[in-house]
Amino acid sequence: MKQLGTLFVISAPSGAGKTSLVKALLEQDKQVCVSVSHTTREMRPGEENGKDYNFVPMEQFNQMIEQSQFLEFAEVFTNKYGTSQLWVEEQLQQGKDVILEIDWQGAQQVRRLMPECVSVFILPPSTDELRNRLTGRGTDSDEVINHRMSEALSEMSHYGEYQYLIINDEFSTALQDLQAVFTARRLELDKQQLKLSSLLSGLLSE
Amino acid sequence: MKQLGTLFVISAPSGAGKTSLVKALLEQDKQVCVSVSHTTREMRPGEENGKDYNFVPMEQFNQMIEQSQFLEFAEVFTNKYGTSQLWVEEQLQQGKDVILEIDWQGAQQVRRLMPECVSVFILPPSTDELRNRLTGRGTDSDEVINHRMSEALSEMSHYGEYQYLIINDEFSTALQDLQAVFTARRLELDKQQLKLSSLLSGLLSE
Repeated sequence: MKQLGTLFVISAPSGAGKTSLVKALLEQDKQVCVSVSHTTREMRPGEENGKDYNFVPMEQFNQMIEQSQFLEFAEVFTNKYGTSQLWVEEQLQQGKDVILEIDWQGAQQVRRLMPECVSVFILPPSTDELRNRLTGRGTDSDEVINHRMSEALSEMSHYGEYQYLIINDEFSTALQDLQAVFTARRLELDKQQLKLSSLLSGLLSE
Repeated sequence: MKQLGTLFVISAPSGAGKTSLVKALLEQDKQVCVSVSHTTREMRPGEENGKDYNFVPMEQFNQMIEQSQFLEFAEVFTNKYGTSQLWVEEQLQQGKDVILEIDWQGAQQVRRLMPECVSVFILPPSTDELRNRLTGRGTDSDEVINHRMSEALSEMSHYGEYQYLIINDEFSTALQDLQAVFTARRLELDKQQLKLSSLLSGLLSE
């Protein structure tokens, strides 16, 4: 069945400003929601089950893997993180656009299962600016910062796998760009035909 | 050779507001220009050669047809109208986005020669509203208005051949939609790679 909503996969290196951009988009565009991941890690103080993450025991997570319930999942140290395909598809059926904030490896998994997804990569305006952003408050050692830089460069080397490329130089411009990608997708013929079927048949029935 | 700009084909029935939307877009987006057609018809008072049309003699127009210089052309009564492919490609090379305001027949010709073009169809919000808009100042006979309606319906029956569908209900929303289609196209990977080649190689060279 054709879905009114669209799945957007958004990736970026740390320091590109992805999380702030997605947060600002969610505030101004009520048709968009962001996926809440499942995780096996411990809930931290201030976190809410179902809002920050869906916290599940390892056994349940592994069962979900076996039942192919994840669009993508990853293991970070001893914890697992994953995106429920069922939940995503429910949102899309209801006409919501869903954002997955995941890395290039997760994006590759999602593209295999839902090739109709739209993928966006966000880049910083320059390596110098990226280093500035990753240096933070200046309390970290060069070694820590160099490690962050090398992880960022490794993530960025995959930008060519994405359909859209947004440079986050000026925040407001990058936000407009991101909004344009979402808006344009909704205007494509297949989505409009689903959304406007009665308008379209009315226009052509005279 | 890959072109930085994009060719946009925009079609609509009379009364959909295409011309006003394109005019407003040109005012707010300096990267866009609209194609000036060649025509064999007489210049009218107030018209400017090279601005409203490129006015050419029939013999020259026919020679241009023979030399396959037109992206599309049409005959309306005894006059011919056409779009110079060379001019369009020059604009695209310079990084301009080019708009062709043409009907579904012209759009079909353009798609065959430049399949990478982006096509947009603009629709009125309802048949009643279309009839209102085509009734104008109320000085026309029912017969004239019915004829306009039937031409509009005939044009609209081709909306399914276009990639994007914009409903012009509220003008400002339709304008935002049109802008989003242009902006999103510029953010696609191939265009960004051409535009940002030095930024991208800089980011990944560390």
